[in-house]
Formats: sequence, structure tokens, C-alpha cells
Amino acid sequence: MAETLSAYADLERRFDRLGNIRDAETFLHWDASTMMPANSAESRGNQLSTLRALHHQMLTDPAMDDLLANAAANSLDEWQRANLREMTRTHTHATAVESDLVEALSKATTACESVWRAARPDADFAAVKDLLDEVLNLVRQSAVAKGERLGCSPYDALLDEHSPGVSGTVVDALFADLETFLPDLLAQVVARQEASPPLLELQGPFASDAQEALGKQLMSRIGFDFDKGRLDISLHPFSSGTPDDLRITTRYEEEDFTTGLMGILHETGHALYEAGLPEDWRCQPVGEARGMDVHESQSLLMEMQACRSMPFLEFAAPLMRQAFNADPGDPAWQPDNLYRLYTRVKPGFIRVDADEVTYPAHIILRHGLERSMIDDDLAVDDLPGAWAEGMRKYLGLAPPDDRQGCLQDIHWYDGAFGYFPSYTLGAMAAAQFYDAATRALPGIPEALSAGNFAPLMEWLRVNVHGKGSCYETPELIEKATGQPLDPEIFKRHLRTRYLGESRLG
Amino acid sequence: MAETLSAYADLERRFDRLGNIRDAETFLHWDASTMMPANSAESRGNQLSTLRALHHQMLTDPAMDDLLANAAANSLDEWQRANLREMTRTHTHATAVESDLVEALSKATTACESVWRAARPDADFAAVKDLLDEVLNLVRQSAVAKGERLGCSPYDALLDEHSPGVSGTVVDALFADLETFLPDLLAQVVARQEASPPLLELQGPFASDAQEALGKQLMSRIGFDFDKGRLDISLHPFSSGTPDDLRITTRYEEEDFTTGLMGILHETGHALYEAGLPEDWRCQPVGEARGMDVHESQSLLMEMQACRSMPFLEFAAPLMRQAFNADPGDPAWQPDNLYRLYTRVKPGFIRVDADEVTYPAHIILRHGLERSMIDDDLAVDDLPGAWAEGMRKYLGLAPPDDRQGCLQDIHWYDGAFGYFPSYTLGAMAAAQFYDAATRALPGIPEALSAGNFAPLMEWLRVNVHGKGSCYETPELIEKATGQPLDPEIFKRHLRTRYLGESRLG
Repeated sequence: MAETLSAYADLERRFDRLGNIRDAETFLHWDASTMMPANSAESRGNQLSTLRALHHQMLTDPAMDDLLANAAANSLDEWQRANLREMTRTHTHATAVESDLVEALSKATTACESVWRAARPDADFAAVKDLLDEVLNLVRQSAVAKGERLGCSPYDALLDEHSPGVSGTVVDALFADLETFLPDLLAQVVARQEASPPLLELQGPFASDAQEALGKQLMSRIGFDFDKGRLDISLHPFSSGTPDDLRITTRYEEEDFTTGLMGILHETGHALYEAGLPEDWRCQPVGEARGMDVHESQSLLMEMQACRSMPFLEFAAPLMRQAFNADPGDPAWQPDNLYRLYTRVKPGFIRVDADEVTYPAHIILRHGLERSMIDDDLAVDDLPGAWAEGMRKYLGLAPPDDRQGCLQDIHWYDGAFGYFPSYTLGAMAAAQFYDAATRALPGIPEALSAGNFAPLMEWLRVNVHGKGSCYETPELIEKATGQPLDPEIFKRHLRTRYLGESRLG
Repeated sequence: MAETLSAYADLERRFDRLGNIRDAETFLHWDASTMMPANSAESRGNQLSTLRALHHQMLTDPAMDDLLANAAANSLDEWQRANLREMTRTHTHATAVESDLVEALSKATTACESVWRAARPDADFAAVKDLLDEVLNLVRQSAVAKGERLGCSPYDALLDEHSPGVSGTVVDALFADLETFLPDLLAQVVARQEASPPLLELQGPFASDAQEALGKQLMSRIGFDFDKGRLDISLHPFSSGTPDDLRITTRYEEEDFTTGLMGILHETGHALYEAGLPEDWRCQPVGEARGMDVHESQSLLMEMQACRSMPFLEFAAPLMRQAFNADPGDPAWQPDNLYRLYTRVKPGFIRVDADEVTYPAHIILRHGLERSMIDDDLAVDDLPGAWAEGMRKYLGLAPPDDRQGCLQDIHWYDGAFGYFPSYTLGAMAAAQFYDAATRALPGIPEALSAGNFAPLMEWLRVNVHGKGSCYETPELIEKATGQPLDPEIFKRHLRTRYLGESRLG
């Protein structure tokens, strides 16, 4: 006896399969970055492309159009309606672009990314610029096609892939605000830090296994469950896995543990977001993380708001000393010096090495450049010049070569345009979420100083993690914090932390 | 412009996808046994069942019948014809059984295996016997359906899943021959070993990391490429992965390294078979290993024929001493004592702990019992009694409880009937392949005594590994060794090694 499913129920069943295929891909990618032998990449590529093709074929099955249209007539509750909205979004992105163009883009990015890997260490932009131009052209065509289906501009369609619900107009306004604020703040912060007594550097080496033990100890304190997750080593740290099987990675440098440790806490923030997603909606679109901007808000909330704060460092300082057998009385290892080390500000060329104050400048630069490229106002040939000009304008530095300039990030060479804004949108949202959490639960900082993350995590579970993709991002932020994303809160956080202004000022 | 494919080419494309899905499953299983956190099994189960369902759906696509029928009319070379034969075999096994029965069997084995895990340590056969009875009934129905499609008996249809090309009649004849030979041989071997001077036991503990380093050193010498494979730890050692990404596992016991080390070399034999499969036929049925019997022949050839031989132990003894800082003059660590340790014979209750001489008795017992169960001549209720009777008959021992009797192996509780014969078919084939290799290349033993596996591996690559599934097993053996599988060669190997008879005798 065949079961008769409503259109919506049929969609849920299909998306359950799609979600499980995607999860399978996730672990094959994780394995490729952590465990896979050096010469097994080709066979792994075949497994992944087979699963990707199946996923695409099932998602673009002609029957889906009718199911999505008919499901709206089913009797649905709030979560089901949101699920249907997200199913439709996923389906629209998959079907808006002709398969020939998808294939051409996939080939072009594979070729471009591969050449970029060799061109970057050689600072040889000329070697890769024609391939980047081809990627850009195909991304632009794809963005135009998606924009037509979504009823938005091409750049907005790209944003929608990474930060759904956020428009280019909103990003422009937020970034314009920061752009006028940051240069003056930076000058004041640098002057203030230069006028302070010299920092005390921590003396290594710091053994990798001691770093790992400390990292795991702090992860557990924050709430990472090692019966549902792992910490491993990879060349580039990342957070991956699924809500029930979280896989984060790091890299240990024996001369400095502080950067790697904060990286672990950053990835832990990503992982705990996944762990807190609504359990009833596993493998359904509405059960997924809201977007890369909200994801980044959770990693930055953990790293920047919670773990680089003085209360947390008061808790962590003795654990750090124990981990590396430091003298308990050594002034370099006291919370105040650790706090100064963790809030040191110094303009530099490289985004991933940037501090909290200068990081947004790197993003504003990239956002402006990629927008101009997509709008055909900036040619790839002119990218290095425009990059140098922007760096001088925002940070007063001109990169000595393209390795430290427009070749430093993989994103564009891999076809990811419209991704960069999520980092700074995330930083702003992190400040706003943390501000709302501490207003709701004023005991949070004191709890952190005792290594107790429970109140903070509880607030995040209820107001962010547990909501999955039920709301669009602006609604999520407004419901959680009582107001739309407001750059003033991020700016106040920076003034408080870096200029010592009262939080209430 | 749509490409028009011949039926055969269409099949190759479909099986390429099927092979890649199965490979993806392989790595998810490997991860589950080696890396996955303790509480992530449920989500992994969902990923695996999704991939299995997709695999089954694609394999049983209604279009396959016509494609398989029409492909025979395409112009095909020898390998393509063999590939079509294996595609048909795979398709027949997948379609012979109604999907309701497949599902019922899957549920029954999951339930039975889970209860068996708890019942085994408690020696509580009563707790699991009803579930085993249900599994048996469903396996029998499935075997009847497959037998009808394949034109063979139900038990032969089960054999065909694990040792394709081998019939129950052949197995019966081979095992009857061994059954008359072994008891007398065993009595002589035990008497001979008891009359010899006492063995010198190796004194531990043996650190796990030293065991691992020694294992990897020997694996590399044999030809395992660590750029295309890994050695890890798991509760139950296994060999997994794909020809281009081999994953073998072991377990270290600090009080004894000899068993674990030989386990590593056994799994290395499995892995090198996979590594040597024909590269042009990756992910096609004809490019796969021939069956579990041939697979076991390659692991046993490596372990029993090559690595438990005196020439290899002459090479390995100094490496073992170095690994564990043993006194070079210690008589316990000399090749002759190591050889005696590695060829010690002692009847026991447990198959996986059995030596080379008593192992076939364990298999002959299980083969007879499972055949009777499938033929409905033995009820599950009577299994413990029949087991004890068989053990007394073959090894002169009655198990003190069912934990050391019919509860010891997972196979039947997991629905695997017809699998056990592959172990002893493999042992016989291993002796015959090694005999043929050393007749063709008489320098092999001397090369082994210098740690040089190249001549042996070269012969195996050409005559076994590189043939994949091009031939049915009997033809493979006959082409490689010049004669059908002949128990006399295995028997002669046992007499030579354990009674000291001249190999030419």
C-alpha cells in the first residue's frame, strides 16, 4: 500500500536525503584535510564530485517545482513555513543557473585556484589574472541569472548565497559608517598603546601537546562535548562536521601559543552554534545555521567578546601558566599583561593576521573592490593598483607586493564573491548579541571570570542557536537584541575596549 | 548536443557512480571505526543509510534490465565482457530479492546483532536465539530467491555473494578432504612440539609506539605506500579504503607484540591486493577484488606463507630486537625461537585466536552447521549442542559455555551465512599461489630473508592483483598456478612446516 504524502511532507523527505548527502560530503572533506594520505586526492575528488552531482540532480528534479508550489497550500506551522521558504531559496539558487554555466564555472575555479596556489608565493599576479578574469565573467553571468530569479541586483544575489536576507544597500550603509569611524579610532588606539609601558612577551617554546591539552580543557569549559566532536590538526584551521559530530581543527606553532589558542576558541564558537541548532530539524534547511554572517558572529562572540575579555583572561591565566609550567609570579603571565597582548593593535597587510580594530578595514576594501568588479567598474588588470590605493586610504600602508596584496586570499580565485562582508557583519552582530546577553544576564562577565560559560551559552541557545534558519537574519537579530543591526554597538565595544571609555558612555 | 552512449558505455557510467558512492560509504565506515566520537553514531547511521538507499535505487533502476540485455550486443573486448558479467551478477543479487524482504532482513540483522553484543559476554544464547531464528528464516528466503535467479541451490547463492564462482559441492569436497587429513596431522604436530625443548617467551612490556614504528617499517618494506594509505587503531583490526587510499587498522597490546604485528602484516596483504587492482578499471565491477576467498588468500599469503616463514623472520629478528631494545644475544630473540613462537600449535575454542593447523577445523565446523541451518536440517535451538559435538569431533574440546562456542562470531547474527568457507578457501589458495610463485621465482625465500618483497609482489601483481575480477575464481587460480585449487598443496605446506617433511616429499 503506497503512502500518500502531502507535497510538504514529500519535500521534507527529499531534503532529508539531500541533507544526509551533504553531511557525507562534509566528512569526506574533513578527512581530506586531516587524515587523507598525500596522493589520494584524485580518488577523493571523484567521490565528492559524484555526491555533488547526485545532490544537484535530486535538488533540481523537475518534480520539485510543483512540490514547492503546492506545499504552500498545505497546512503548515511557523517552522514548516520557514522550512518551505528555505527549501525554495536553496532550489532557486540551484536552478537559476544553466547547467552549462555551472559546469564552466566549476572548471574555471578549479583551474584558477590551482594556479593561484603557485602564483601567491611568487607574488605573480600576472600568472593568474586571465584565469581570474574568466572566473569573474562566469560569476557575473551566474549572479545576473540569480538576480533575475530572486528579483535583486547581481551583487545582492551573491550576498544572498552567503548572508541571506542582507542586501548590498544595507552593507554599503553599515560599512560607510565604519569607514568614517575607523581611521580616527585607529589613530587614537595606536597612540594610546604606544604611550603605554612596553608589553611583556611570553617566552616559549610551547610544546604542541601542552597547547592541545590547554585548548581541549578550555573547549570543555565553554561547553564543547568531546563525545560529539573532535579537535585535530590541519594546515588551515576550520570548523566542520555536523551538529552531532563536530570537527574543528587547528595548527600549533611552538614559538607562540596565544594565536593558536584563540583560533581554537574561535572555531569552538562556530562549533557550538552548530551544536545548538534545533534538534527537531536536523537535515532540513530550516535547521541549518542562518548564514555565514551569523556563523561568524558566533565565532567572534566567543573569541573577541568573551575570550579576549579581561574576566575570561583572569580565569584562563592560571591555566595557561600551569599548561606551560610558567612561574606563577611572572608578570608576563598575569591577566593584565595577557589582556594587553590579546588586544594589541597594529595595522598590517594580511587580513587573517589582523586585530579586531583593523580587520574591518580589510573587509571594507575587499567589499568595495568585488562590488566594482561584479558591476564591471573595475577590471581585473587594475586590481593590484586599486588594492594598493585602498590599503593606503584605510590603513596608511601600501603592500610591497601582490602576495601581501590582492593574492593573499583564496576567495575570489575560488569564485567566492560576496563572501567577505560576512566577516564584518559577523563582528558587528557579535558585539550586539553579547551586549544584549549581558544586559539580559548581567552576571555573564563575572561567570566568565570563574570559567562558567553556562549563562552566556544558555542565552545564545535560546536566542540564536536554537532558532536555526527560522527567521531571516535581520529578524533574528531584532528578536534577539530588540533592535536591527546597529553599528553603534560595535563601535562602542571598540571604544570601550581600546580607548578605555566607560561602556555606558 | 546530447551524446549517444552505447548500452555498455551507459552501464560503465552508471557503475562509475555506483562505485564512487560505495567508496564514499567505505570512508564513512572507516571514520566510524577509528575517528568518530562516541555519541555520533546515530547521525552517521543516517548518512550511511541514505547512501545505501541511493546506491540500491540506482542499481535497481528499471532501465538497467534493458541496458544489461543490450550491452551484450555491443562490440566488447575481454575485460569489457568480464565487466558486463560482473555488472550482471551485482544487478542480479540486488534485484533477486523483493524490497520488502531486503528491508525486513536489514531490520532483523540490526536488532539481532545489537542483542548479540550484549548476549555474548553473558554467554546467554537464549537471549538471542529467537532473533537469530528470524534472521535465519529471512536469509533462507533471500537465498531461495537468489538461487532461483542464479540457477543454483540456496546455499550456493549465499556462497556466490562472498566467494563468487565457488559452489557448495566443491567446498564440500575440499573440506571433506581436509577433515580426514587434519585430526591425524594435529595429533602428530602436538606430539612433536611437546617433545621439543621449551619455547622461550619474549618479555615485555612492549610500548605501543615502538610496535607502531616496527609495524610501519615492515609495511613499507613489503610495499605499502604511506602516501596512499594509513595505519590506525581500532577495536577490531580491519583493512578498508580504496586502491588509491588504503586504510588498515590494528590494536596494540603492551604485553605481547607478536600477535598484533602479524595482524598488521595480514591486513597489509589485504591492502596490497587492493593497491594492485587494475588501475584502468577503478570503480567498475571488473576492477574489484575477486571475492572474499581470494582476498583472504592474499592476506594469508602475506601472513602465513611469507611472514611466518624462517627466511622472513631471519630478516625481521634484528628489527624486532632494535624496536624493543632487546639484547642482540638473547636466545629468545633469535630467528629460530621466533619461528617456533610463530608456528606454535594449540587447539582452542576461539577461531580468531587459532593457529594455522587448527583454523580449518573451526571453519569446517561452521560450514557444516550453517549449511544444515540453511537447508533446514538444524534448528537454531539445537545449535549449541551441535557446536559442542563438532568441537569434540574436530578438536577434542567441548566449549565451557556459548560465549566460547556459538556466540563467539558476529557473522550469523549479522546475517552473513556462506562467508565462513572463504577463510579456508583462502588459506588453500594462499598455499597454492605461494607455491606457484616460488616455483616460478625460486629466489623468493632468499629475497625475503633480505627483506626484499619485490619478486613476490611482482608475481602477485601480474598473476593475481592485476587481474581484478576478469576471471572467475577457479579460472584465476588455474591461470596463475597451472592447476585447479588442490588441497594437496596446502596439506604439503602444513606437513613441511609443522612436521619438518621435505617440501619435495
